[in-house]
Amino acid sequence: MRLCLENCMSVSSSLYRRQLFLVRSLGGCCCWVHMEGGGTAVKARFSTLGADAEGLMRIITPKLDPIRYKGQAGKIAVIGGCREYTGAPYFAAISALKIGADLSHVFCTRDAAAVIKSYSPELIVHPVLEESYSVRDEEKASVCAKVLGEVNKWMERFDCIVVGPGLGRDPFLLDCVGEIMRQARESKIPTVIDGDGLFLVTNNLDLVKGNTLAILTPNINEYKRLVEKALGCEINDQDASQQLASLASRIGGPTILRKGKTDLISDGLTVDEVDIFGSPRRCGGQGDILSGSVAVFSSWARQRLAIVEESYKLSNVNPMVLRSIAGSALLRKAASFAYANKKRSTLTTDIIDYLGRSLEHICPAN
Amino acid sequence: MRLCLENCMSVSSSLYRRQLFLVRSLGGCCCWVHMEGGGTAVKARFSTLGADAEGLMRIITPKLDPIRYKGQAGKIAVIGGCREYTGAPYFAAISALKIGADLSHVFCTRDAAAVIKSYSPELIVHPVLEESYSVRDEEKASVCAKVLGEVNKWMERFDCIVVGPGLGRDPFLLDCVGEIMRQARESKIPTVIDGDGLFLVTNNLDLVKGNTLAILTPNINEYKRLVEKALGCEINDQDASQQLASLASRIGGPTILRKGKTDLISDGLTVDEVDIFGSPRRCGGQGDILSGSVAVFSSWARQRLAIVEESYKLSNVNPMVLRSIAGSALLRKAASFAYANKKRSTLTTDIIDYLGRSLEHICPAN
Repeated sequence: MRLCLENCMSVSSSLYRRQLFLVRSLGGCCCWVHMEGGGTAVKARFSTLGADAEGLMRIITPKLDPIRYKGQAGKIAVIGGCREYTGAPYFAAISALKIGADLSHVFCTRDAAAVIKSYSPELIVHPVLEESYSVRDEEKASVCAKVLGEVNKWMERFDCIVVGPGLGRDPFLLDCVGEIMRQARESKIPTVIDGDGLFLVTNNLDLVKGNTLAILTPNINEYKRLVEKALGCEINDQDASQQLASLASRIGGPTILRKGKTDLISDGLTVDEVDIFGSPRRCGGQGDILSGSVAVFSSWARQRLAIVEESYKLSNVNPMVLRSIAGSALLRKAASFAYANKKRSTLTTDIIDYLGRSLEHICPAN
Repeated sequence: MRLCLENCMSVSSSLYRRQLFLVRSLGGCCCWVHMEGGGTAVKARFSTLGADAEGLMRIITPKLDPIRYKGQAGKIAVIGGCREYTGAPYFAAISALKIGADLSHVFCTRDAAAVIKSYSPELIVHPVLEESYSVRDEEKASVCAKVLGEVNKWMERFDCIVVGPGLGRDPFLLDCVGEIMRQARESKIPTVIDGDGLFLVTNNLDLVKGNTLAILTPNINEYKRLVEKALGCEINDQDASQQLASLASRIGGPTILRKGKTDLISDGLTVDEVDIFGSPRRCGGQGDILSGSVAVFSSWARQRLAIVEESYKLSNVNPMVLRSIAGSALLRKAASFAYANKKRSTLTTDIIDYLGRSLEHICPAN
């Protein structure tokens, strides 16, 4: 379901024109678009990108061609992994490879690196982050600069970075990661923010404000904190789509993918819903797969935006929304396959095992 | 396709005689052999070793015989693996075993050793290399001598060494590895050079100049740097075979295997092409499999050279070329099997799983 919604807080005339264009252009489900400021309530019927998530994936996913060389199908990096958490960054990084990225890096602390490396020889793991316990106060500035230097050497090679899986909440580490996010933004690298990355961002919204290349992927609790911080109110499940659009608009820039029974995606202008059946299992780690999945489609969608717009007779489609829809749909598909096989016993690694088959099921490689 | 090409830079009369011999001896595809210096353009028809890569593998691969003992089917060592990279040396070393080598060693840094050991109990992993961060300036000479001593204890036992997978670019470590390469050369150990080993060699061509027992296996970017450094020009894809022969001739000694949509192999005198269908997936790590594969065939081809020459009615066949053709063909075959099964989700470990089946498919063990 794709809803074009009122941005309750601030509605520009260009948004209003775009909404009118969509009303004219599209058929499909019914929704209200409330226009405040200069607007009036408009009852609109829209066709949907989210409802055709599989069709969208078929358009976004690039053909494989023997003349292509290593890296052209995607170079991803995950910023995460500390003394406590090593599974989450692994899940995100290996998911990216299993979906079809060529290279997947992890930037983590030294303690985490050996463990993450041992999960898989396919990942390139950089032991460069530092936590407070290993750094004296007087060293912090120089250590942070060194960390930033180590990551920056690589930054421009990446098509997308994922910030947050297994990052932990060490204040010094989070400060350094905030600087990495600023650097990614300067370098115009799309950035998916999940887990403890959302904790960092919720406490410092300026890190993502105005960054249209950022995607936030909160679960229910992370979303609750974001709503409280940015909108100053409680979650409103009765009008979830509108509240999500309001939140995205208030933050201004990032696309938000709200995970739940169905996934809702908004950039503040539109709301899409992905309701492909997934799995009733809620084992930890599925959000990490999602972040890796969105990252891969991020590198693919950029090249295929014009074809999507032509196929759906749309203009000004936000590529970050496309990435989020495709990433969500693939995870849900893989989760449904894994659950059909493993039932209550389904784990995140089982779902990862189905990522390739799920994508092949939707858009065969040859 | 096997082309006997002009060596643009320097063509000896012995080369000219050999080319004439080949022209007389062989049937097959057509190519021009330009002879400068004392030569004239000759239109020649050649039969091909690369085009019959599977037949060649059947000749090179030794029969398994219960009377043979451990080590006779190949003892390989990989020099690589540092704080950042552990997957690459593992891929190269385990590939050698999976193809049929009896023993596979890895010489890496201490940080890398525990991780590489954890990937597989099949490998013998020596934590002997050192990176700058763990060595004070005044210790460097003695540490380098110690590293060299540790590796030299083993050197003469190996049938082939692979230098470069996951080596990293630490200057001190590369200096030590340069010394290891010199020692291997003195000991007449065939040496496959890939990855960061090519970075080292490109910046110091003397390390391989005149070494006919060296094989360089550059991908497109590594090849570009080699061409710029050795020939002082850009890549010429219109006349790729000739440029490769020129490059090999200019460096003088090593065989070069240029990886790409098809693999081109030249020792400066001939160019072979291996175009067996592989996989359109370009996930990182496939080059490491190739280096391990070439290393195994390196230990096998030496014993079977006379049979190859007799079978193909050739003389003066360069065994390094045979190794490269066989190594390339096996990787491509395994990649095609893995891709048929895993499609976009194909990873390097999946390809490694098919190495044995691919060789069995080409030349059954019994």
